[in-house]
Amino acid sequence: MSSAKFSYAGLFSSRSQDLPTRKVIHPKYDFVVAYPDPETVPLEGLMDGLKAGLARDGQDLAYYPHPLGLPELRELVVTKLERDRGFKVTPEEVVITAGSSEANWLVVQALTNPGDTVITEEFVYTGTLAQLRRAGANVVGTPLDDQGIIPEALEDLIKLLTKQGKKPKYLYTIPEFQNPTGSTLPRARREKILEIAHRHNMPILEDDCYVDLRIEGETQPAFRTLDDSGIVNYVASFSKILAPGLRHGYFTVPEDVQRRALSFRAGGGPSQFTSYAVVEYLKKDMYGHISEINDVQRAKRDAMVSALGEHFGGMGAKWTNPAGGLYIWLEMPKNYDMTALQPICFEAGVGYSAGSNFAPNGNGDNFARLCYGHPSPDYNRDGIALLASIIEKQMSRGKARVAPGRR
Amino acid sequence: MSSAKFSYAGLFSSRSQDLPTRKVIHPKYDFVVAYPDPETVPLEGLMDGLKAGLARDGQDLAYYPHPLGLPELRELVVTKLERDRGFKVTPEEVVITAGSSEANWLVVQALTNPGDTVITEEFVYTGTLAQLRRAGANVVGTPLDDQGIIPEALEDLIKLLTKQGKKPKYLYTIPEFQNPTGSTLPRARREKILEIAHRHNMPILEDDCYVDLRIEGETQPAFRTLDDSGIVNYVASFSKILAPGLRHGYFTVPEDVQRRALSFRAGGGPSQFTSYAVVEYLKKDMYGHISEINDVQRAKRDAMVSALGEHFGGMGAKWTNPAGGLYIWLEMPKNYDMTALQPICFEAGVGYSAGSNFAPNGNGDNFARLCYGHPSPDYNRDGIALLASIIEKQMSRGKARVAPGRR
Repeated sequence: MSSAKFSYAGLFSSRSQDLPTRKVIHPKYDFVVAYPDPETVPLEGLMDGLKAGLARDGQDLAYYPHPLGLPELRELVVTKLERDRGFKVTPEEVVITAGSSEANWLVVQALTNPGDTVITEEFVYTGTLAQLRRAGANVVGTPLDDQGIIPEALEDLIKLLTKQGKKPKYLYTIPEFQNPTGSTLPRARREKILEIAHRHNMPILEDDCYVDLRIEGETQPAFRTLDDSGIVNYVASFSKILAPGLRHGYFTVPEDVQRRALSFRAGGGPSQFTSYAVVEYLKKDMYGHISEINDVQRAKRDAMVSALGEHFGGMGAKWTNPAGGLYIWLEMPKNYDMTALQPICFEAGVGYSAGSNFAPNGNGDNFARLCYGHPSPDYNRDGIALLASIIEKQMSRGKARVAPGRR
Repeated sequence: MSSAKFSYAGLFSSRSQDLPTRKVIHPKYDFVVAYPDPETVPLEGLMDGLKAGLARDGQDLAYYPHPLGLPELRELVVTKLERDRGFKVTPEEVVITAGSSEANWLVVQALTNPGDTVITEEFVYTGTLAQLRRAGANVVGTPLDDQGIIPEALEDLIKLLTKQGKKPKYLYTIPEFQNPTGSTLPRARREKILEIAHRHNMPILEDDCYVDLRIEGETQPAFRTLDDSGIVNYVASFSKILAPGLRHGYFTVPEDVQRRALSFRAGGGPSQFTSYAVVEYLKKDMYGHISEINDVQRAKRDAMVSALGEHFGGMGAKWTNPAGGLYIWLEMPKNYDMTALQPICFEAGVGYSAGSNFAPNGNGDNFARLCYGHPSPDYNRDGIALLASIIEKQMSRGKARVAPGRR
């Protein structure tokens, strides 16, 4: 048996990347990743749903799944989109995916050549940022205020980039409870952005994965609701209302985009076994479950907001009080380097994501994203108290202050 | 609302393909796709497994799954590989995937630059052939006999390609119950092929997805069993022993290949919900279930082989009597154009795959792959009888004869 180590030097594809495998370590207080509440995962409901689905169609598991995903689940998506988002599609226009991340990745690959410029919000979901970079995109952030993308600034940016020979290919946006900032784009801005998009022949990739998590206020119409021309590619997820471990999301895009996107899919789509559980459970209790989740989340958000007031108010920090979603966006005074503090706090028991993780240009050292959705209100209170005390200690030692001249 | 159709002309990435969406239509007698027997899908066992898994760890669904897949399932794979294939890996060397097709696709992307030459068997699984083309590979088939790859012919081919400036990057092979030909490569040939691979610095992508489906005879050691150097990348599946609809397979490759392969993954891995069902069921009854499947499959193979004798013997056809797997490989006399007959037979109620579908160079018009594994022995008998009568009718009308001068 040959056992001298074989070398792959020179054999890897140039598109492959030598990425470290993500480590799965949770600090005592984990405000990093957007987990829903484990207590709200409807285990019994999913089991009952699966039982019903398998009793009716279980032997279909012996076939390879439909390339677009389980037909019954696509029909449920059609009904949900019409009821919740007010636009009509057919089941053939819906593709079930392994979470919204597969959905985004397929559309990104369909639309991105290496070197293409893609506009995102100034702070953008890290998963999509990584995908865009993976596809070779030149990612440029467009300025945000507390209502999200500023249409005028977006158009200025497009014009500037076009003048520089870097005409943007498309816009990626999370208009409802934006990740990481938590803002929701008002209808009037969406309409303006659509006009701009048409003017510059620039499709929109709309990631609506948080829309169901509204605690209060009015849901805004989706870009896709406001525009039926095909310029909007719409992505959403079941991860937030059920559980990420189910790996179920979906997208609906024009027919030609769908074919291009699916040309990148391998693995034959998500588990049909899981699809049975998802569809049968949601048919029975989707809205009851969503309202239950949001009641639970309200208490957690309130606990975190009030703890921030208690412990961070004195530091001159500002934070959002989001109407839903999963995140609070914390802005520290400029001299706080939340990027440098991130590993220190993690080590000391509190995880968060520094703003710089979300910025295409690496800015945002004095920002942090705090996920309030995972465990209990008390946990949020205690974690925020601990976080404040760690940061104060570090700052008083002169550590983690932003060096003069640094952004 | 804008509704004039938006045009994506000029916006698609050059890597995207405008592929037709696969249609899911089953003819009355479906010998096309490799479905296992629907009766053998262990629905109750999977439900019980899921129940046990969820009771213990269900709330973990609220987290994003481990990037390599459920740890318990990776441990089961380690145990299975040691017991069934005689090689040792650690759970960190195993990655759970959405079927073996995702596994192959990740490794293919890690190793293939557009224009690279990749060697496969002369007839090769269409799914992998499509993936290799998707990755831009120049796919070249190496000659087969009834025992699979002929080592001497392989080395001649490598030398020829190298001389032509097309040195092959790697070899893709299904050594056990090859798809579509059903052959199993003897140990001595595997040893020779490994020597050749080392001599030419050419990794092997070993797709062992059919190994559990042995009806009779001796399982041969895997390439991976015979070589621990890292030159062998090993892929396998749970689709054949459980159900394709679960979308569960796995791969084990050297550490650096794993990182490169995972750099192409999006969607966060397969459904953890399904993983619970798979691991708990298999822990309890994997080998009992495998032996039950193979008993069922033996009767189906025998029925198809005997029906071929009855209806195709007179036509001068030859066919294999495979020791396992899912396929019989039918060789018709040279003047039978099974490629042209394929849609005609499908229309008339019998589906099969013509040999030309599996050939990188499009050869093989007088061959066909028949999957015997899906429904009952009677169905196989009746379908083969019908197939023979359709073909005879077409041939007697002078249709579908191979034109002189055509391959």
